[in-house]
Amino acid sequence: MIDVRNIETYPPKSVVKEEIESETKKMVKEIGELSRIFEADKSHSLLIVLQGMDSSGKDGISRKIFRNVSPTVICEYGFKKPSPEESNHDFLWRVHKQVPEKGHFKIFNRSHYEDVLVQRVHNWIDEEKVAKRFKAIRDFEDLLEFDGNTTILKFFLHISHKKQQEKLNERIEKLEKNWKYNPNDFKESELWDKYMDAYNDVVNQDGVQWHIIPADKQWYRDYNVAKVVRDTLKKMDLKYPKIDI
Amino acid sequence: MIDVRNIETYPPKSVVKEEIESETKKMVKEIGELSRIFEADKSHSLLIVLQGMDSSGKDGISRKIFRNVSPTVICEYGFKKPSPEESNHDFLWRVHKQVPEKGHFKIFNRSHYEDVLVQRVHNWIDEEKVAKRFKAIRDFEDLLEFDGNTTILKFFLHISHKKQQEKLNERIEKLEKNWKYNPNDFKESELWDKYMDAYNDVVNQDGVQWHIIPADKQWYRDYNVAKVVRDTLKKMDLKYPKIDI
Repeated sequence: MIDVRNIETYPPKSVVKEEIESETKKMVKEIGELSRIFEADKSHSLLIVLQGMDSSGKDGISRKIFRNVSPTVICEYGFKKPSPEESNHDFLWRVHKQVPEKGHFKIFNRSHYEDVLVQRVHNWIDEEKVAKRFKAIRDFEDLLEFDGNTTILKFFLHISHKKQQEKLNERIEKLEKNWKYNPNDFKESELWDKYMDAYNDVVNQDGVQWHIIPADKQWYRDYNVAKVVRDTLKKMDLKYPKIDI
Repeated sequence: MIDVRNIETYPPKSVVKEEIESETKKMVKEIGELSRIFEADKSHSLLIVLQGMDSSGKDGISRKIFRNVSPTVICEYGFKKPSPEESNHDFLWRVHKQVPEKGHFKIFNRSHYEDVLVQRVHNWIDEEKVAKRFKAIRDFEDLLEFDGNTTILKFFLHISHKKQQEKLNERIEKLEKNWKYNPNDFKESELWDKYMDAYNDVVNQDGVQWHIIPADKQWYRDYNVAKVVRDTLKKMDLKYPKIDI
């Protein structure tokens, strides 16, 4: 059993920032090159799920890791508070509409996992429903994989409570971060322990792989996400399809 | 009256490729920086319409001009042959669903203009319907502008017939371009003159601004598109919103 509280949010002392940054730069370029073959190959789709507490860097990942991937190939969808229409459907209804088609990447900034996180932390759903949702999520992800040839990469951006509070305060102090300020984030932050319990259940589900990314330092967070994405694309053995004329 | 046949598809002799490329590079960076304030400012949306004959470089524009814009901010939608469901609605139904929200860029790779181009060239619609559609397009774009604060930038990527044929042939000859090969493109290419007539009517509509971009050389095409986008963003006087706490 994983307890995220026991997992470091900081880079290990042995790594050198400059080396990591230069490695990330190379991988970001590789991801761009591979994305062009991915588009042409048109047999896979890639779904990148970004979860993490407020200010853990979900937006930063999109900007930094995928800078060489064309908007023709990649698109992000941010899940916010469900609309009344969305709430009047099952929790996967709005999610299913957003999954990537073949030849495309999709980033989920938050995802269907919020429905077993924020909703659980606030006791908006009971434990029976939580269990049923976990099963529904597994079935849903299986479906995408076997019938859509979708690869799903799930990242938990793991930031420390202390670092989060620093970053939330920056949103008040720095003008260019003001637009991200939301007083509600501070309230949610007080529920830290309940969130960590809920995340523990998420990352410990049977047969579901999560990448837990130390997120206190952007450069190390970016490196680890880029590595998973680059390695995944490489393993796909993508090819430019050859036509017979 | 503009006749696109009289407009150069080639860069003027006076320009120097290296200077243009270094200018483009600077502008692409600026577009990235401005896009971050655009996202925070959240009062505008930007719609980029890319039209042009096959192989005029619509995909290339997305990849090259917007490389510093995060997938959080930008997304592309490619309009293909309408599905049966789409055909059973008015021609703007599927288009309206794709327009950008505030704080976002959207690229239309082809657009509602195909409904007065390909459909007209093949005589699938009569001239009365063409006229009505032109009016509907104007009203639709007005709506986006006055009620969505959407800025619409329309680009006609203007390639010569000769250059197009070279590029279509490359799709047969070069393995990494094979995936773009479509025998139908050659048939459409034979209708060149009818297409140019139809484009003339598009770019000459009253009160509608088109940017006609010489597209035979990628580096000059990219420069001219980047310049329009950069200048447009600059004029918006974007600001990071300041909060009072």
